[in-house]
Amino acid sequence: MINETYKQMLSGKSVIRELSEYATKRGQEIGYENVFDFSLGNPSVPAPQSFTDEMIRLLQEGDPMDLHGYTPSLGNAQYKKAIAESLNERFGMNYGPEHIFPTTGAAGAIAHAVRCVTKPGDEVITFAPCFSEYTPYVDGTGASLKIVPPDTETFQINFEEFEKMITDKTAAVLVNTPNNPSGIAYSTQTLEQLSDILTKYSEKYGHTIFLISDEPYREIVYKGADSPYVSKFYDHTLSCYSFSKALSLPGERIGYVAVNPACEGADIIVPMCGQISRGTGHNCPPSIIQQAVAKVCGETSDLSVYEVNMNIIYETLVELGFTCVKPGGTFYIFPKALEEDSIAFCNKAKDYDLIFVPGDGFGAKGFFRIAYCIDTEKVKRAMPRLKQFVEEQYPNR
Amino acid sequence: MINETYKQMLSGKSVIRELSEYATKRGQEIGYENVFDFSLGNPSVPAPQSFTDEMIRLLQEGDPMDLHGYTPSLGNAQYKKAIAESLNERFGMNYGPEHIFPTTGAAGAIAHAVRCVTKPGDEVITFAPCFSEYTPYVDGTGASLKIVPPDTETFQINFEEFEKMITDKTAAVLVNTPNNPSGIAYSTQTLEQLSDILTKYSEKYGHTIFLISDEPYREIVYKGADSPYVSKFYDHTLSCYSFSKALSLPGERIGYVAVNPACEGADIIVPMCGQISRGTGHNCPPSIIQQAVAKVCGETSDLSVYEVNMNIIYETLVELGFTCVKPGGTFYIFPKALEEDSIAFCNKAKDYDLIFVPGDGFGAKGFFRIAYCIDTEKVKRAMPRLKQFVEEQYPNR
Repeated sequence: MINETYKQMLSGKSVIRELSEYATKRGQEIGYENVFDFSLGNPSVPAPQSFTDEMIRLLQEGDPMDLHGYTPSLGNAQYKKAIAESLNERFGMNYGPEHIFPTTGAAGAIAHAVRCVTKPGDEVITFAPCFSEYTPYVDGTGASLKIVPPDTETFQINFEEFEKMITDKTAAVLVNTPNNPSGIAYSTQTLEQLSDILTKYSEKYGHTIFLISDEPYREIVYKGADSPYVSKFYDHTLSCYSFSKALSLPGERIGYVAVNPACEGADIIVPMCGQISRGTGHNCPPSIIQQAVAKVCGETSDLSVYEVNMNIIYETLVELGFTCVKPGGTFYIFPKALEEDSIAFCNKAKDYDLIFVPGDGFGAKGFFRIAYCIDTEKVKRAMPRLKQFVEEQYPNR
Repeated sequence: MINETYKQMLSGKSVIRELSEYATKRGQEIGYENVFDFSLGNPSVPAPQSFTDEMIRLLQEGDPMDLHGYTPSLGNAQYKKAIAESLNERFGMNYGPEHIFPTTGAAGAIAHAVRCVTKPGDEVITFAPCFSEYTPYVDGTGASLKIVPPDTETFQINFEEFEKMITDKTAAVLVNTPNNPSGIAYSTQTLEQLSDILTKYSEKYGHTIFLISDEPYREIVYKGADSPYVSKFYDHTLSCYSFSKALSLPGERIGYVAVNPACEGADIIVPMCGQISRGTGHNCPPSIIQQAVAKVCGETSDLSVYEVNMNIIYETLVELGFTCVKPGGTFYIFPKALEEDSIAFCNKAKDYDLIFVPGDGFGAKGFFRIAYCIDTEKVKRAMPRLKQFVEEQYPNR
C-alpha cells in the first residue's frame, strides 16, 4: 500500500516555497524587477571561473572511463585529500583523507552523521532559530529532534533552557553557525560553554554526546565577526559542509562529513557512512563534481556582495526603529517584526511587494527572515519601499 | 553512541570488492594485462561524445546561476520531459513529466520506490539470482527482502516457489531484467504470468502488490532476445532506471523512477519521493548532469562490444562442457561451476589469474558470474587460459 507517512507529509506546505511561488506569480503580473523577493536562500553570485575551467579541462582532457566511472564507495581519493588539507591549513586541524566522507550537500552530510551516532528512539537537540528542514532530516533517521527556544537578545545559545532538555536519551546536538535564519555566528565563548556542557552531560550519562555541526555558511563571515571553527572546541564533532554557498553550487549537491580525528569512533565513522549509503541509495556524489571541486575547494565565489547588502539593510532597519541583531555572516538577517504576529506582519509587507519569511517556521515567532542574496541594486531600490510600508502600516511604532 | 547496526555491517566483507582488490594487487605483481579480471560490472566503453559535448556547451554558454542553481525538489523540468517522451516513443507508454522522479542512479531509485509502497515490517519479494545489494537496499527502508530460489534451468521466474512465499505482508515485488548476474531477460510469457499472479494476490489480500522494476541493463539487449518493457504488463509498476550502463556514467549517479500513469497513487508517488528525499538527504541528482542527460537520453554508448564478448565466452563455455543459459543482454553470463562448491571453483580459477565471482552471494550456489565488460582483445586472450584451467583441474568432467 502507499506509505501513509510520506503521503501525509504532502499536505504540509512549505511556507518559503509558497512565498517564492507567490513572488514568481506576482512578478509575471508587474515585472519581476518590481517584486522585492527576499524569500529564498539561493546564492546570487556565480561559481568561480576556476571551477568552470576545471570542469571543461576534465571533460576535454580526462579519460571518460576514469572521469565518469564509479567512485570508490568512501569517496574520490583526491577530493578527500584536498578537503583534509584545506581544513588543516585553515583551521589548524589534523584530518586525514580517512576522516572525510563526500556527500550530496549538507543535507546528505546530516543524514549520514545523524545515523552514525544515534539509533531510532534517541534524541537530537538543536537551537532555535533553526532551519525548518532539520525536523524531517532528523526524524527521517528514526531519532527525534528537540528544539531549544531561542535567546532572542543575542541569538547565541539559550544555555539555561538547553540544560533542562538534556536527558539520557540525548545522543547528539546539532548546531548551525553562521546561522540560518539569524545570520549570527556562535562566538568563542558560546562554543566553549557548549563544549563544557556536552562534556559534563556525557560524563553524567556515561555515553558520548556527539556534536553535529552544520556549516554551509562557514565561508560567509563579515568583518569583525567572531566565528571560530566548531570542531576545535569539542573532539566528538562531525562537521557537515556543503559547497552550495561558498562556491555557489547548490544544484550540484556536493559536500562532506569531516570527522574530528579525536572523535569517538573516528576510525570507523567514515566506513559506517559507506554502509548507511547502501540503505539510503546515496552512493557518493557525482564523480566529475568531486574531481573538479578537489581542485578549487580552497577558493570561493566573490562573496563580498552579501556584506554590502547586509549593511544597507541593517542600517535601514535600525533607522526605522526595528530591533535587530547585526549578522556575523550568511546572507540572512532576522529582525523583530513590528507586531507580535509576524505572519500578519509579512502578509502586510506582501501588499508592498516585499517578500519576507515569518520566523514561526524557524522556531522564533515574532521575528522574520530577510534573505538578501539578491543584486545590491535591487536591495537599494527596496529600501524606500520598506520605509513606506513601515510608515504607513506602523505609524505609531 | 555509535550506531551498532551500521558498525556491525562493517564486518560483512563484499566478496566482489575483495576479488577486485585481489585482482588489482595481483596486477601490480604480474602486470594488469595478465590478470583476467571478470569481477566488476563497470562499463568498458566511454560515454558518448554527445554527452561530453553537451556538458562543455552548458559550461561555456549556460548561465552559471541557472546551471548550478537548486533544482526544483521534484527534478529539472527538461530532464523529466525528455525521459517521459523517450519512454513513450520507444515503449508506447503515456508518461507525463509528473510521473518521472530524477534520482542518484538506480540505487536511489529503488530507495525511493520501496519507501513509497511499503511501510516498516512489510515484505518485498525478489527472485534469485539477484544483485547482492538488494538486501541492504530493502532492509534499509524498514521493509524486509524475501528471495525466491532460482529456476536454474532457465533463470526465468520460479513461479511455484514464488506463490508459496506471497503473504498478506507482501507489499511489493522487485524484478531485475535483463538480469544481473544471469544475463537473462524476462520473456513476454514470464511477465504475463507475473502480472496475472500479482493481480490475483492483490485481489486475495485486498491491497495492491506493487511491482518495482530495476532495469539499468534495459538498453543492453542481444539479437533475438525477448526483452519487453516491464511496465507494459502491469499497471502498478515503478520502473527504476540508471544511465550507468547505457551512457557509461556510473559515477555521475543519474537515473529516475518512472511511475506507470495507471498505477495506484500515480498522481502522488513522485511528490512523495520528494518528501522521502528530505529524510535520506538526497535532494535531486546534480543539476548539470540532469541538464546534459536531458539532451542525450535517447542515445547510448557503443554497446556492441558486450554482445561480441558474450558470444566468444558462450561458445568457449559450451565447447568446454559447461551448462550455461545464453544471456539475452547485460554484460554478465552465469554458468554452472564444474563442482558443487562454486567458491572452491572460483578459488581454483584464481590460480590461473581468472577472476570470477561465486554465485552464492547472488542466491544461486553452484554457479559463477563472469562480467565481460572488458576489452574484446583481453576476452580472446582469456579463453586459452580458461581451457587450460578446466582441462587441468577438471579432466574427468
